[in-house]
Formats: sequence, C-alpha cells, structure tokens
Amino acid sequence: MAIKKIRAAIEKGADLIEIRLDYFKIISNEELTQLLKITEIPKIFTVRKKDEGGHLKSTEEERIRILKKCIEFKPEFVDIEYSTSNINELIKLTKKLNVKTIISYHNFSNTPELNELQKILLKIEKINGNISKIITNANNIDDNLRILSLIKYAKNKIVTFAMGEKGIFSRIFSPYFGGFFTFASIEELTAPGQINIENMHEILDSFSRIKAEK
Amino acid sequence: MAIKKIRAAIEKGADLIEIRLDYFKIISNEELTQLLKITEIPKIFTVRKKDEGGHLKSTEEERIRILKKCIEFKPEFVDIEYSTSNINELIKLTKKLNVKTIISYHNFSNTPELNELQKILLKIEKINGNISKIITNANNIDDNLRILSLIKYAKNKIVTFAMGEKGIFSRIFSPYFGGFFTFASIEELTAPGQINIENMHEILDSFSRIKAEK
Repeated sequence: MAIKKIRAAIEKGADLIEIRLDYFKIISNEELTQLLKITEIPKIFTVRKKDEGGHLKSTEEERIRILKKCIEFKPEFVDIEYSTSNINELIKLTKKLNVKTIISYHNFSNTPELNELQKILLKIEKINGNISKIITNANNIDDNLRILSLIKYAKNKIVTFAMGEKGIFSRIFSPYFGGFFTFASIEELTAPGQINIENMHEILDSFSRIKAEK
Repeated sequence: MAIKKIRAAIEKGADLIEIRLDYFKIISNEELTQLLKITEIPKIFTVRKKDEGGHLKSTEEERIRILKKCIEFKPEFVDIEYSTSNINELIKLTKKLNVKTIISYHNFSNTPELNELQKILLKIEKINGNISKIITNANNIDDNLRILSLIKYAKNKIVTFAMGEKGIFSRIFSPYFGGFFTFASIEELTAPGQINIENMHEILDSFSRIKAEK
C-alpha cells in the first residue's frame, strides 16, 4: 500500500517523499528495508507524535522505540518533534548514523505573532538539527504573510507554512520565499488545506512561466 | 491609439481601465469625451506627476489645469498624487462632480518598513479621498510580504503592491489579500515587474481553481 503510493509520488514528480510511519499498524524490518530501497528520491521517516497529529495508538515510549529503529535504518531524513522529551539522545543517534534531522513544531490552533514564531525558531535551532520545521494553523489569510515572513530569520534550512483552507497560499508559495520544501499529497487529502501534487505543480509552473517571460 | 488600446483591454477582460493622460501630447475635449464614451467599464484618468513617473513635459501648474479639466469630464475615477500641492481644492471639485478619487503615493527606491507605510497610509486617509494607493519598489522578495501586510490596516479601499521584477508576486496577489485592484498591461510593458493581462488571468485562474477544487 505504502509502496504503491510512493510509486505514484515518483511518477508525479515528487522531489522528496515523507513516509508517515505512524499510519502503519506494524513496521517490520523488511518493510523498512523495502521502503528505503524503492527509489533514489530522498525519504523522510516520520512517526508523528499523537498530540501533534499522529495516528499511533501506542505509548510515547513505544513511539521513541519505533523512531530509534527508523533512524537505524538510515533514511535520508527523519522528522523529530521539538517537544520529544529525550530529543538530544535521538539527535546524537542521527549524527552518528548520518541521518539528517527535521526538528518540527506544529500548532493546530493558530499562527502566533512573528516575535513568538522567532522565539520558537531559535529554540529549534538550538537543538542543532539540520532543518527547522514550523507549521501553524491559518485562521485568516493574513496569517499566510506572517508565517512566510518568518523564513528570512532562519539560520538553518526551514520548512514553514500555515495549515487549513486559509493557509493554502503559504503552503504553495513557501519555497518561493526561501522555504526548503513544501508538501503536496498524492491522492486523497488527509488534512484541510493540503493540495495534490498536480495542482501544486500547475500553479508553481504557471508562476515561474510568468517570471521567465519577463 | 488610446482608443485601440482600450478596445484591446475590454476584449481581454479588464474590469477597470487606467488612462495615463500624461502620455498624450494634447488632450482635446473631443478626445476626453470619446475616451469616456467608448465603454461602460469604469475608467481612471491619471495625469501622473513628473517626479512620480509622469511623462508630461509641462509645468506642475499646467498639469493641475489638465487634471481639473479631466475631473470636469467626470470619469468614474481620477488618480491624484498625495504630494500634489493644492490637493484639497481638487478633492472638493471631485466631490462636487461625484468623481471618485484614488490618492496615490509612489516610492521608486524601496519598500519602507511597515510602521512607515502605516504612517503614509494614515496621511493619505486624512485627505478624505475614496481609495488609497501606495506603490513601492521591491528590492528583495520579502518586500512583497511587507507591502501586502499593509492591506489589513487600510480603512478605505486600498491599492498596494511593490514594483520591479522582485515585486511581481505582490502585484499578482494583492487582490487576494484584500487589495481593491491591481494592474496588468495590454501589450508592451512600460515598467519592470508589470505583467500582461493574459498572464495575470492565467495565474489568478489557476490559483482560484485550486481553491475551488478543495
């Protein structure tokens, strides 16, 4: 099932593939090996925390155990929530195994003020991962401008946009303002404001064509 | 010549037509009458001031005289530079004749900080025109986010974006963030960062399609 979706993502021109392992019932060693072998396109292993939108039914200890196992299989990237209790130990492991880390923060209720966002960014950068990821919720369209204006303050690479229908703008244009990457879905949408990869390409191509013609 | 261009704009789906009368060598009463009769689409008469990008070779006194004459022909809108010396007198005339005013400010060198932009906006709003227009120059792509974030502070309708290649983003998406309108050109581009009406429609249609599909 996951393999089929990854093949669809490759076909549709994804540059990077996030695999949400918290959607898997059991993750066997064979499955992890197979997931990593399927394509040369870099993969992000994510075992999303329950209170940050994760689907794992186990305890936090079990999640950390799965996360460690995932890191040991050496995907190109692993996404670790900033709020993970023993994050420094996990970071050590990733550095040892040369796995790049995305340190993530999710706010499902709103998009904080810019100075608040900058504080969160600084805290994330102190963790000494490779990429900072700050995802908020858009309650109005101005939130798009605020979250995108965070990008210029990032010392590391940053992934940032606002979720929800009202955040669709920031989701699409984050890379134009210097965001490291954004997300598009392959088929059915799992969160409001997500857009599929064809639509994402359509608008970004249309925008670059206009810039190129000038 | 102007008539031909206006017809092209109508055909290409313009919602509003700006007529830059400072590009005309002589403007006869017949010509003004003809320009206003050609279509029901609202027209903006503009006699741009020399130091704000205007092409008139006459004195400022002569420009004011032309501006007054234009107002007397009662276009739907007239654009008056905020820096025009006897602006209150002109405003009085527009109110008497029921011509809507766009009070404009152009900065060709940069996009000031947001608090500076807010001050300019407040000054413009005090003039008691109908629409505030603040056009700056983009020196980097973050200027797009700053100029667009001004929109939410406007009490009146506002037209605002940043000029230049780096400002193209704000020019396209200003209406999405609440800007009253934006500008596209009909054929040849007269300023860097301008885009033609077909390209403008292409990207805006593509963006609304994505929002609608969700």
